[in-house]
Amino acid sequence: MKTEVAIIGAGPSGLLLSQLLNRAGVATVVLERATRDHVLSRIRAGVLEAGTVDMLREAGVSDRLDREGIPHEGCYLSDDDLMVRINFRELTGTPVMVYGQTEVTSDLYAAQDQIGAKILHGVEDVFIQDADSSAPFVEFTHNGGRQRLDCAYVAGCDGFHGVSRKTIPEHKRQAFERVYPFGWLGVLSRTRPAHEELIYANSSNGFALASMRSETLSRYYVQVPLTDRVEDWSDERFWTTLKSCLPSDVADKMETGPSIEKSVAPLRSFVSEPLRWGRLFLVGDAAHIVPPTGAKGLNLAVSDVHYLYQALIDALKKGDTAGIDSYSERALLRIWKAMRFSWQMTTMLHRFDGEDSFAAQMRKATLRHLSQSETARRDLAENYIGLPF
Amino acid sequence: MKTEVAIIGAGPSGLLLSQLLNRAGVATVVLERATRDHVLSRIRAGVLEAGTVDMLREAGVSDRLDREGIPHEGCYLSDDDLMVRINFRELTGTPVMVYGQTEVTSDLYAAQDQIGAKILHGVEDVFIQDADSSAPFVEFTHNGGRQRLDCAYVAGCDGFHGVSRKTIPEHKRQAFERVYPFGWLGVLSRTRPAHEELIYANSSNGFALASMRSETLSRYYVQVPLTDRVEDWSDERFWTTLKSCLPSDVADKMETGPSIEKSVAPLRSFVSEPLRWGRLFLVGDAAHIVPPTGAKGLNLAVSDVHYLYQALIDALKKGDTAGIDSYSERALLRIWKAMRFSWQMTTMLHRFDGEDSFAAQMRKATLRHLSQSETARRDLAENYIGLPF
Repeated sequence: MKTEVAIIGAGPSGLLLSQLLNRAGVATVVLERATRDHVLSRIRAGVLEAGTVDMLREAGVSDRLDREGIPHEGCYLSDDDLMVRINFRELTGTPVMVYGQTEVTSDLYAAQDQIGAKILHGVEDVFIQDADSSAPFVEFTHNGGRQRLDCAYVAGCDGFHGVSRKTIPEHKRQAFERVYPFGWLGVLSRTRPAHEELIYANSSNGFALASMRSETLSRYYVQVPLTDRVEDWSDERFWTTLKSCLPSDVADKMETGPSIEKSVAPLRSFVSEPLRWGRLFLVGDAAHIVPPTGAKGLNLAVSDVHYLYQALIDALKKGDTAGIDSYSERALLRIWKAMRFSWQMTTMLHRFDGEDSFAAQMRKATLRHLSQSETARRDLAENYIGLPF
Repeated sequence: MKTEVAIIGAGPSGLLLSQLLNRAGVATVVLERATRDHVLSRIRAGVLEAGTVDMLREAGVSDRLDREGIPHEGCYLSDDDLMVRINFRELTGTPVMVYGQTEVTSDLYAAQDQIGAKILHGVEDVFIQDADSSAPFVEFTHNGGRQRLDCAYVAGCDGFHGVSRKTIPEHKRQAFERVYPFGWLGVLSRTRPAHEELIYANSSNGFALASMRSETLSRYYVQVPLTDRVEDWSDERFWTTLKSCLPSDVADKMETGPSIEKSVAPLRSFVSEPLRWGRLFLVGDAAHIVPPTGAKGLNLAVSDVHYLYQALIDALKKGDTAGIDSYSERALLRIWKAMRFSWQMTTMLHRFDGEDSFAAQMRKATLRHLSQSETARRDLAENYIGLPF
């Protein structure tokens, strides 16, 4: 088998890259370990920066997003009963869009089907070979047979646990990592959202996030110890804890109901540098992870695709390699900004085990500063809606 | 002996309070443990907020400050060779004033002498008695004899180690504290300042601050382990370390010379709440300490005096206690803002032992964010020049 760009992973970054390249006449093959149903069942992020929406429009996959996405002109940060509104529209002129990553992936699959893009599922034992040569290829098992995919470039869109990053020799990459001493327990429920905008809640009982996927579908999170498992959390325990973290007037009138999905995710900051090794390019979670506080994960993957797709087109169609030569550096500049913001939001909003009372006071003081300083709110808003590409 | 307000401590907050009260016709007695020469030999802060300058003008002690103070329209933050200018004038309309705390104290002494204010030096074994009654008094030893000072109110301006805070019963106060795992080694030298504005330097060799007291008097600091003593630091070692932390073009042309003064100070954040117990009011370092990063210590003491002096005048001259009743709450609101800023500046600029490479990246990313975002620079500038009273 032969193609121009082999794409490892059919998550949103792999599919979006494939879609943008196909529309520009570049041939791609996407290799995905899971089934399509499994990919589409993953519950992930739900807040899209304006730049991300623009990229989806450019890829021709925004029809449903433009119809069903919910523009949010602000969000709230709370500290027990103090609510601080961050007014994106007033502070930056730009709202964000609430639209589930699951829906983005679904739209991308539909668009890929329509143009006949090649996506192989159930692919196992992937090896990226000769990535540092002029003739890389990918070996993998599919439908019981070993196959070989020759290509000009490989895009590693296979997430934190994927093979792409590990293909780069250890002495050629450097990792930066922070593992936070807590996780998020997430619950999806068919209930009216507690509030019309997201609430990031700092509280003496820990962090909580009240978010949504639609007018009738709520997505909530509470901070939990890393040792906790889903089985430890009955729906009743979850709702009680969530309410204890949110401002009381929100908690009092919140609709509750059975959970549709429940999962615990650890929080991690991670960057592997550089994003390129020869003809292999890392994209999204394959190279970097942010904690979900601030909703940067999916947006950052799309940002990588933004820098990479035009660079690959230039290299393949015009023989101009300036774009791929600068990809790692350009993408990393923006990645580190989002790492900083996500780390700051996480530190500002979570209770850390063993912390002293001074740390709790600093969280309170930071939220009070936001409540009193328009400049501080603008700084947060500019980062939240997404810094320029 | 009898007075209206007994003031414990003849540092800048005690003297300023005494000066403002005397000018309003309120009688004071200031009790100071050290000698006047000792008080005037202490090398301390050197950056005055505009609000502090206003307070000194209001107290009638700004003649020399207005002549000799050096207005600074900005400062620099550096990260190895990256220099980020924070332009106070452009971002906020307001500069700060460089003028040593030692000079402020000296001016206050001169003014106190002129109006014949009573300041006792060499006072020992101070006990504040019956502060929670309507008739407090202070007992102390002076010139070998035990004395008693009856008063209406007591102002505790005697610093972190003073007796005032400890006079408040333990169950009536709450402390918040953060001790940082490093100190500042400070050197005063008769050399031209390395730069016309202050440079707060983050570097892989640790933190350094290049500051000044005048055109010919420089004040420099480098981050040192808490276990280091002045004897461990020859002038030569100091200059070599300082240069390794500053941007190379600044270091290359810096004038060096013998140190006039050299001292190691630990870094601490500390707040004791509340600031009032009965008729005793805590002011400045007696109630709160900030690390020096951001130059808030003296300014915050003056801010406390701002809230307290009019309140005491109202209580004594008009029988209106609204001001003293709200003193603690009003002063603490501003104190916590400055605590947050000083903690953030300290965290952003210092290397912490045992920190991971991610923490170092976050410091770099924060400085890069400042270099790229006018909003972030404005937020820093608004805090640096001093939030409104």
